[in-house]
Amino acid sequence: MGSALAIPPASISTNKVTLIGSVLDEGIITAIQKNRHHPTLNATIPDTINVLQLADVNAELLLTADVIVLGVSSPGIDWACDLLNRYQAKPATLALVTKGLVQGSPIDAAPLTYVDALPARLTYQGSHIVGIGGPCIARELALNYPTRVTFAASKESVASDMRSLFQTDNYRISTHTNIVALEACAALKNFLCIGVSAMLTAYPLGETYAKNPLAALFNQAVRELFILSQWISESSGTPTAANREPTDHVAFDLAGMGDLHVTVGGGRNSRLGMHLGSGATLSNVLATSMAGVTVEGADTGRNLHYGFKSACISGVLDIEQLPLTNAILDCIIKDSVFAFDVKDLPG
Amino acid sequence: MGSALAIPPASISTNKVTLIGSVLDEGIITAIQKNRHHPTLNATIPDTINVLQLADVNAELLLTADVIVLGVSSPGIDWACDLLNRYQAKPATLALVTKGLVQGSPIDAAPLTYVDALPARLTYQGSHIVGIGGPCIARELALNYPTRVTFAASKESVASDMRSLFQTDNYRISTHTNIVALEACAALKNFLCIGVSAMLTAYPLGETYAKNPLAALFNQAVRELFILSQWISESSGTPTAANREPTDHVAFDLAGMGDLHVTVGGGRNSRLGMHLGSGATLSNVLATSMAGVTVEGADTGRNLHYGFKSACISGVLDIEQLPLTNAILDCIIKDSVFAFDVKDLPG
Repeated sequence: MGSALAIPPASISTNKVTLIGSVLDEGIITAIQKNRHHPTLNATIPDTINVLQLADVNAELLLTADVIVLGVSSPGIDWACDLLNRYQAKPATLALVTKGLVQGSPIDAAPLTYVDALPARLTYQGSHIVGIGGPCIARELALNYPTRVTFAASKESVASDMRSLFQTDNYRISTHTNIVALEACAALKNFLCIGVSAMLTAYPLGETYAKNPLAALFNQAVRELFILSQWISESSGTPTAANREPTDHVAFDLAGMGDLHVTVGGGRNSRLGMHLGSGATLSNVLATSMAGVTVEGADTGRNLHYGFKSACISGVLDIEQLPLTNAILDCIIKDSVFAFDVKDLPG
Repeated sequence: MGSALAIPPASISTNKVTLIGSVLDEGIITAIQKNRHHPTLNATIPDTINVLQLADVNAELLLTADVIVLGVSSPGIDWACDLLNRYQAKPATLALVTKGLVQGSPIDAAPLTYVDALPARLTYQGSHIVGIGGPCIARELALNYPTRVTFAASKESVASDMRSLFQTDNYRISTHTNIVALEACAALKNFLCIGVSAMLTAYPLGETYAKNPLAALFNQAVRELFILSQWISESSGTPTAANREPTDHVAFDLAGMGDLHVTVGGGRNSRLGMHLGSGATLSNVLATSMAGVTVEGADTGRNLHYGFKSACISGVLDIEQLPLTNAILDCIIKDSVFAFDVKDLPG
């Protein structure tokens, strides 16, 4: 996604864009440098993007960058922070493509998004943080298909300034200020996608699958995204947006409903869900067909777990309204089979 | 859908259920009477359902029914009302599966849903009306796949009494009181589905289609469902629910988002959308591959059109927030090609 996201801003002539590979990306960077072809995206990386191996990064580059976008997967976030600290990076804006939750502190507190967790890991505290969410398959972005996403920052002008650096005819950006809710939705949609995707295998019908159960759980997942993102947002101390009109609410928009739409049916979280829907357990899947695969939604579940149970016990969350979250957590924490019954849906 | 919906209540021993075919259903009823097999649902109709040809309907049956469910398609709604009037039916509850909009009066007023339009066509005025919405493919319901729907009535107790007659382990029902919004969403999702489904053909990618544009328009369609259903609900004089929390709002729940999820990719509205997405015009499609086919979403668009344009001119609706509605109407009213640009999406 980091590579794909470099493409829209590089098409704007006043931007200067550098793409830096992580320690894991040496082969990809070598391939791009050779013939501008990104092997995993199966797409061309334009000449206007300066493409560098990690070893070739120089201090001046990171020191002078106005905007730094973190596109590593969630297990790499500490590594990325260390890199920024080592080079004394002080970007005006730090943008997050990486999504995940961090266990609360104490561990039974509400989990944190990276907006709240990152500052403690960074030496420089002056950057504005921008969250990037919405339905965006990286390859389609790289191929310039019409895509609609959302940028959030606690100050509206920060989000809209970022938009003016990134927006093209086919990469369209809405902005808002509820960054914690955006980050929570973007992480939790991977987690909830596991349960929705289980419906792709749990109820076969002819050559395909029954669509009523899938739609029922898609709907429920968005409701739970709303409840959980609201809780995490309120727990973070970020002022709740005064305007609570549904269309303005993050969970019912691009970073929640929209992104969940594109996530179910593609990617690792969905693959895990389809295995669970066929009756497998998580430990079995991770020992066999998905051995060695990072499933971010499962990590998100682990970091959500203690805070969630504690909030249900104290009554801050109503577990009756969150049956899908509860069922997916049972798979992740207790290694149960996915045993969701439509009767568990609230009335 | 009428046949499928007879199945859950017939499984409850205290109910007595009769399924009556319309003038168009003689062949289907004959087939069911012969071997209990419904030929278009490709499913079994249980023995507990009394199945009748229209010619065999007797006055007492309609006179004594506590609940009558109308399952005809929207062009048959007047025919169904005439039948009820002829037999002096006076059900305590009249439930609507039929969905559509009726042009406002004067024609540039907001369109009406059947909740508001039906009473003027009925002799008996004492029935409570219940709207039935949510993601439900008839065949899957008939095959007892897990399904989650929503019933609404202006009085909560009417909706929950209906639920107790219909709810089974696999047919789950939530209830609420915003019946006009439910009816508006259920009709408009067919209309908006046309535009979302155009994305299934407009942007091919390999063997399939790009998913970013589909998710962007799915998201936008739900936003427009919210705006339009709110407008129709408020115009009807039905008190707006005091509680405007997103999860309680109809458009962002089963009758809106959930039903749209199941509608895109299946059915006639979606087929029309896919033709439009390939560059065809409506007149061309209706003269060739879909000749003689009733497309309810297109009818809904025709009945929405004058009220919509008028509300945009007077400022009651903001056309900038409704670009998808506007683009679909251009196809239906002006016979334009579907020319939606992602740049038209509001910021």
